[in-house]
Amino acid sequence: MIRVAVIGYGYWGPNIVRNFRLTPGVRVTTICDSDTSVHQRIRRDYPDIEVVNEWKDVMRSPSIDAVAVVTPVTTHYDIAREALSNGKHVFVEKPFTRTVSQAAKLIDLAAANRLQIMVDHTFLFTGAVRKIKQLVEQKVLGDIYYYDSTRVNLGMFQHDVNVVWDLAPHDFSIMLYLLGETPESVTASGSSHVNSHEDVAYITVNFPHKTLLAHFNVNWLSPVKVRTTLIGGKRKMLVWDDLSQDEKIKIYDKGVNVKSREGIYDLLVAYRSGDMHAPKVDRREALTLECEHFVECIASGKSPLNDGEAGYEVVRMLQACDKSLRENGKPVRL
Amino acid sequence: MIRVAVIGYGYWGPNIVRNFRLTPGVRVTTICDSDTSVHQRIRRDYPDIEVVNEWKDVMRSPSIDAVAVVTPVTTHYDIAREALSNGKHVFVEKPFTRTVSQAAKLIDLAAANRLQIMVDHTFLFTGAVRKIKQLVEQKVLGDIYYYDSTRVNLGMFQHDVNVVWDLAPHDFSIMLYLLGETPESVTASGSSHVNSHEDVAYITVNFPHKTLLAHFNVNWLSPVKVRTTLIGGKRKMLVWDDLSQDEKIKIYDKGVNVKSREGIYDLLVAYRSGDMHAPKVDRREALTLECEHFVECIASGKSPLNDGEAGYEVVRMLQACDKSLRENGKPVRL
Amino acid sequence: MIRVAVIGYGYWGPNIVRNFRLTPGVRVTTICDSDTSVHQRIRRDYPDIEVVNEWKDVMRSPSIDAVAVVTPVTTHYDIAREALSNGKHVFVEKPFTRTVSQAAKLIDLAAANRLQIMVDHTFLFTGAVRKIKQLVEQKVLGDIYYYDSTRVNLGMFQHDVNVVWDLAPHDFSIMLYLLGETPESVTASGSSHVNSHEDVAYITVNFPHKTLLAHFNVNWLSPVKVRTTLIGGKRKMLVWDDLSQDEKIKIYDKGVNVKSREGIYDLLVAYRSGDMHAPKVDRREALTLECEHFVECIASGKSPLNDGEAGYEVVRMLQACDKSLRENGKPVRL
Amino acid sequence: MIRVAVIGYGYWGPNIVRNFRLTPGVRVTTICDSDTSVHQRIRRDYPDIEVVNEWKDVMRSPSIDAVAVVTPVTTHYDIAREALSNGKHVFVEKPFTRTVSQAAKLIDLAAANRLQIMVDHTFLFTGAVRKIKQLVEQKVLGDIYYYDSTRVNLGMFQHDVNVVWDLAPHDFSIMLYLLGETPESVTASGSSHVNSHEDVAYITVNFPHKTLLAHFNVNWLSPVKVRTTLIGGKRKMLVWDDLSQDEKIKIYDKGVNVKSREGIYDLLVAYRSGDMHAPKVDRREALTLECEHFVECIASGKSPLNDGEAGYEVVRMLQACDKSLRENGKPVRL
Repeated sequence: MIRVAVIGYGYWGPNIVRNFRLTPGVRVTTICDSDTSVHQRIRRDYPDIEVVNEWKDVMRSPSIDAVAVVTPVTTHYDIAREALSNGKHVFVEKPFTRTVSQAAKLIDLAAANRLQIMVDHTFLFTGAVRKIKQLVEQKVLGDIYYYDSTRVNLGMFQHDVNVVWDLAPHDFSIMLYLLGETPESVTASGSSHVNSHEDVAYITVNFPHKTLLAHFNVNWLSPVKVRTTLIGGKRKMLVWDDLSQDEKIKIYDKGVNVKSREGIYDLLVAYRSGDMHAPKVDRREALTLECEHFVECIASGKSPLNDGEAGYEVVRMLQACDKSLRENGKPVRL
Repeated sequence: MIRVAVIGYGYWGPNIVRNFRLTPGVRVTTICDSDTSVHQRIRRDYPDIEVVNEWKDVMRSPSIDAVAVVTPVTTHYDIAREALSNGKHVFVEKPFTRTVSQAAKLIDLAAANRLQIMVDHTFLFTGAVRKIKQLVEQKVLGDIYYYDSTRVNLGMFQHDVNVVWDLAPHDFSIMLYLLGETPESVTASGSSHVNSHEDVAYITVNFPHKTLLAHFNVNWLSPVKVRTTLIGGKRKMLVWDDLSQDEKIKIYDKGVNVKSREGIYDLLVAYRSGDMHAPKVDRREALTLECEHFVECIASGKSPLNDGEAGYEVVRMLQACDKSLRENGKPVRL
Repeated sequence: MIRVAVIGYGYWGPNIVRNFRLTPGVRVTTICDSDTSVHQRIRRDYPDIEVVNEWKDVMRSPSIDAVAVVTPVTTHYDIAREALSNGKHVFVEKPFTRTVSQAAKLIDLAAANRLQIMVDHTFLFTGAVRKIKQLVEQKVLGDIYYYDSTRVNLGMFQHDVNVVWDLAPHDFSIMLYLLGETPESVTASGSSHVNSHEDVAYITVNFPHKTLLAHFNVNWLSPVKVRTTLIGGKRKMLVWDDLSQDEKIKIYDKGVNVKSREGIYDLLVAYRSGDMHAPKVDRREALTLECEHFVECIASGKSPLNDGEAGYEVVRMLQACDKSLRENGKPVRL
Repeated sequence: MIRVAVIGYGYWGPNIVRNFRLTPGVRVTTICDSDTSVHQRIRRDYPDIEVVNEWKDVMRSPSIDAVAVVTPVTTHYDIAREALSNGKHVFVEKPFTRTVSQAAKLIDLAAANRLQIMVDHTFLFTGAVRKIKQLVEQKVLGDIYYYDSTRVNLGMFQHDVNVVWDLAPHDFSIMLYLLGETPESVTASGSSHVNSHEDVAYITVNFPHKTLLAHFNVNWLSPVKVRTTLIGGKRKMLVWDDLSQDEKIKIYDKGVNVKSREGIYDLLVAYRSGDMHAPKVDRREALTLECEHFVECIASGKSPLNDGEAGYEVVRMLQACDKSLRENGKPVRL
């Protein structure tokens, strides 16, 4: 039985608690939030869970095996370091840390103490992403030409970071997982209208393999909500519309057939347009599967697919975006 | 009566001929195409129009007042220069020219000879763009925060240029017309998969006024066709979906209300979400209105809204995109 | 403080409990379900609520003021009669009863005992229906020409009734409320594929005013989920798509203008096509408002808009549909 | 070479002429229209075609082999009879005739003279209908449960008939072709708002096999244009959206699995929800294929799939609808 303390009970914390409670092999023993106004609600909903004020109080407790860090990103490093130092596995909200050096230190600390780090890249556990991963691995799409993501809506969810740090961690973690390629450089352009944080941004990611290109459109000031990713492959192309109820993924038998014409340097380009297929996508809640994966990894000692390294890679991209934003869209090598 | 010769009868030429024939005050006297295989079709459809092989043959004819240049972009400069030198007004297919210096020379030549240049930025004459222009001018949207355009589909229409030169002239001309602002710099990233020309590209445009940002997504390898532009303003926001039959423009009473809290540097951010309104959009064919505008401008001597300067500005942006593409997305000042 | 007992804790009962608990002036004191397997869940979620087996046990209790009947329709009459006979107000799940005579008896019983009946026509309290009611009352649509509803999906929710009794009560109650007209006759056609109950049915409703026509398409075997109602009026027309997140109601400035031509019996028919408007719709949970309305009506003694009479009218239509179904679609007078 | 005279050059006639001109083995020699104002347009577009006033003038001409009747339905019988009596094949616009007895007489006359009748049920030649026919024949859908068609828009196209005669011939001809079943009875309800003709109507069609049910929603007063047909089968279900550009047909692997529980009369009903598939649909113009089929049938002597019998069946349903409309929705046996 893994005994978990959850630090932070704001917007996302209640989902973490609810899911860990449903996970076999886990017991949520403690919830910590410095905002005492939520304590009453916790006590009403979960009379059996201890509620505390200060996260430091839970760190020395021998009756806690793992800590879920569901607080603002600026606090992740301190809390996770303390937890790892005290022999506790950590489950950290995305983005992992505020800097790559913080991420690197936590990875080292976990390795030294033989502890697990899981970064809450929840989307990797959705039926949609798991299905696309399968399609990529089975070479259904063929070589990937581009990854083009749009994640826009009205309203910000976090006030201490810009739209890139708020929305792009989802897409960066998904893209890295799906493509399995390490980016080479990043360009980001954005603008601010409400406060000093960028609320509109466009990010382009280049790879060593020049035929692959990724792009991310993130926006807190869009009149419509869009959650769409296009993935163009040599053999097939795919549209993932996460807002669609029944047809989240559509696979198009479309593409280009190129033939060199004999004896000359000219090319015959023919466009291929065939059937469309929308596979059934598993609807189980992603966070439930992620919590189960956390337990399995602690039991087996194997690294989660969303381990500290995965979190590190995302933070590295975020930091490069910030640098490019400051330099008016100049490319930043990773 | 303005007597027009149309040079080039490929994909777009027949539309130019059909529309000029319907325009009061115009007579299409001559069609020129070096591909003699289309001559028979022209003669069948229009027994009253002269058909010639060589565009140079029409330049000296005193019975021609204006020349429509509907040929590949690399030939625009030579044909238009010859026409202007021979005292003929020119209607030039977009993009205007291959280089800004060509564009500048044609503008000077037209001015010296008191002739009109119209660049075929057809979209400016669509009901949708005219309606949006009206909304911008009437300050319905308020200060513009961003202009975000997506123009993607499967298949290229031109083999001698990249996707930027093929698709972005539409959006650049529309954006420049609607916003009435001069861009400061451009970044463009792209990749090539079918031949040496980029078939996927992302373009960000910065303005002196830092709160305004424009972005363009152009792609020949998309499994789905998208023609959507989001315009975010301080007061209202707008989605223009050019593929929608009946609701091309949706105006959202959405936005952000910001108040400084007394005595502190903190901000209260509130999101406003109200009604949506889809105004009726004039469905008359844009090219018809554009041809009429050409006649009016020749008659009145006033500059067309899509004059040589408008064409120049678009070419300047296209050249800057090419430079940024070659330099891996580095910002290029205009 | 109105003390409520909720009878039935299956699919819908938990929502009733949750909402009554949030309603000021109400205390849910007792939940009754004959299926003891749900008792544990109730006790865990609501340690302060009494749980009982037999609904008859709660009827004599002097500490209960109102009973919510959330059981299968065949049991509604017995439970509600017992409650009313014991001086308790009743909130009854839709459809009100299995027969009109049952409905009439309950209405009489409530009147004799000065008690309230509310039938759970939840949809009347949605933002969408309240907005449409307002549009109808303000004559925005003008005279209503037709009411055309489609409510189809895959899967049945009730096993003891046909698709008409399952899905049409929603639409009948909404239509009667919105139009305020009493139907004259009903025709219904259907077929059965899974068991003896019709799973596909089409219902047409005629009114004394012959220009008004209503139609209902209900289907448990549709591959796609549809919740769409078209309302055509003389002045404007409306589409209500209940599955749309942000644009549930679209009002079209479309219609027909008819002029008699002078001196002849001919008509000039012109179609009018103008702007579309999607008003903001209140998103508060309908059931919450309905529970509040229940409390207000008990306090004030005024009839709920979804009172026993409203429930009676719906049952009258359902019974007529069954008769028409048995007679192969013959019209049945109401 | 089949020499065709086209009678009627209103809305649809030009399409017939254009397509017959493109059909190998056909020459359009004559166009007839009593409205002399269109003669000039015909002469301009087709200088090689003879133009006449009176359809009777073409009937005796020995240089005409076939007559296309593209006039209002009330005139079909007289013109077609005269053509058949004079040894000419006929291509008749839908609906075939105004009465079944007219249809029967024409069929007999054609048989006696060994001539072909083709009724212009154009939709049978669309890629979508041909693909669905193939799916039905290959038993992909399994036994058909229902056929549910919606064809609504704003505006009428014919002033001498009601909405049923205008729109339903499309759907009746498609349904009869696809299902290959003979209907048993019809109920129709409608109402009139603009003139004396019904502009809104709902039609239910019953079959000897009671599990099959068809329904048709036709409406000239809808604010939105809909062209959607749902076909529910035992094995799979299908949605045909004729307004969709790229995904006209979607086949859903959805349905119901029923098992009798051992020893009891109860049923276990399970809903199956799997992948969706949108096959590529041939985009060739339906009318082109239909014209080619006309030529083939004349050459081979085989009956067209849209022969006089097919036209007769549609007229029989239309007449039954009119009878049911007059009798307030009473079922009418066919």
